[in-house]
Amino acid sequence: MSHPFDEAVQLAWQGQDCFAGHTHPAWANMVGPYGGITAAVATHALLQHPQCLGEPVALTVNYAAAMSDGPFELQAVPVRTNRSTQHWQLTLRQTQDGLAQVVATATALTALRRETWQAQDCPMPQLPPPEAVEPVTLFDRVEWVRRYDMRVVSGPVPEVQDGRDLDSLSQVWLRDQLGRPLDFAALACLADAFYPRIWRRRARWVPAGTVSQTIYFHASGAQLVQHGAEHVLGQARAQDFRQGFFDQTAHLWARSGMLLASAHQIVYYKE
Amino acid sequence: MSHPFDEAVQLAWQGQDCFAGHTHPAWANMVGPYGGITAAVATHALLQHPQCLGEPVALTVNYAAAMSDGPFELQAVPVRTNRSTQHWQLTLRQTQDGLAQVVATATALTALRRETWQAQDCPMPQLPPPEAVEPVTLFDRVEWVRRYDMRVVSGPVPEVQDGRDLDSLSQVWLRDQLGRPLDFAALACLADAFYPRIWRRRARWVPAGTVSQTIYFHASGAQLVQHGAEHVLGQARAQDFRQGFFDQTAHLWARSGMLLASAHQIVYYKE
Repeated sequence: MSHPFDEAVQLAWQGQDCFAGHTHPAWANMVGPYGGITAAVATHALLQHPQCLGEPVALTVNYAAAMSDGPFELQAVPVRTNRSTQHWQLTLRQTQDGLAQVVATATALTALRRETWQAQDCPMPQLPPPEAVEPVTLFDRVEWVRRYDMRVVSGPVPEVQDGRDLDSLSQVWLRDQLGRPLDFAALACLADAFYPRIWRRRARWVPAGTVSQTIYFHASGAQLVQHGAEHVLGQARAQDFRQGFFDQTAHLWARSGMLLASAHQIVYYKE
Repeated sequence: MSHPFDEAVQLAWQGQDCFAGHTHPAWANMVGPYGGITAAVATHALLQHPQCLGEPVALTVNYAAAMSDGPFELQAVPVRTNRSTQHWQLTLRQTQDGLAQVVATATALTALRRETWQAQDCPMPQLPPPEAVEPVTLFDRVEWVRRYDMRVVSGPVPEVQDGRDLDSLSQVWLRDQLGRPLDFAALACLADAFYPRIWRRRARWVPAGTVSQTIYFHASGAQLVQHGAEHVLGQARAQDFRQGFFDQTAHLWARSGMLLASAHQIVYYKE
């Protein structure tokens, strides 16, 4: 138990659908922890819950307030269990100003998956392999980016912040810096690894933060084991920026071309 | 109060964050009510809640079990209210087998929106106007489709169910059949108006149903008022079909080309 990811998602079962956890300095963002690690903690809680049925299929995490560095309580309630699907409501609380306050909420779907007809209509873009791309630090002001080997194929944060009109696309090879193999929690964590699209779109830094994120897990647990610690190709792009909020869409492919997850988020921005 | 939409979303405030509602036969789907009307009820509840701050920005609805025709209780709790954003947890319960059971859950973000820099990177496709397209009934086995004027530009349910390999794209002009103007609840309702992509993709009918849906509202209330009762262009497309679940993405544009909402859902399918 020495990897910073496993340390950060570690939860102590308290009974009655409750876990106790603690933020981890290795995953610090500008204010509070990186959103991806909170999604990872939620995913890990599902899988640790003694009543969990199947594997994660969908997860929505809402970042209700800035998390403080310190302990938290995560309640994960299986509100409806069907024959092959299970629905969850999650609430993450911290003591703030002397009160137990909600800092994040989530809903999740877990399910027993079985072989069916299949098709992937979202092919991986043809790009240079990770070995052909230099690793970079996307922005070194925050700690969590150091947890990843990031190789930007296209769409870095613009070096010159001159307010040019750019596209919002980024394509990045991503891998855990220490080679930890991928699992559901680590995949949830990766889905938020793209900086706010508005920084690229406007070639300008403005305050921005994810408010809600939805992840669809396409890969099964067995497929993630097979993927191991290989690089993942991540692609992110925005759709609409308006009145303080924009949405961005992300895709994560295994090196083999298999879509591991698709994700969507709505991001607050100022100005 | 005679329009079937307003009748279906009507809620009686019970105090303590609870509303009482009732399913409506005009919105019946194959089993229980059409998912879109449940999303509409959730949206309407937010806006009716005496503590609601601002307008809907994001909504995730999870269809936990088949709803029965009859009464329901909807709890909508503002779990965190910030200066300009508010986070909600919603739970919809019905008495099933003599017990109050969860049949749907939701989370939502409402916010005070203000003018900022804006950009729409998701242009409306250039297509024939609604006047140039014949209205059709997509599939007449269910009641709710009769609530809409639907003009399919591309991607109808394949007439011949021969298992061909097709694309999953549909483009449809949509409007309330009786010309009711659009509002947030009606927009949430529209976001689910696309039949399961697998029916088109495989040119084959298989059992399928939405399990979770996320809607991002890009339009403000004022922009919806301005839109009025004009046709909306809806576009839906799938991304990945695997092991019993696929995801589909939808966009809804005003006739002016303005993106009103983007939506994503994960859909269960058998076989």
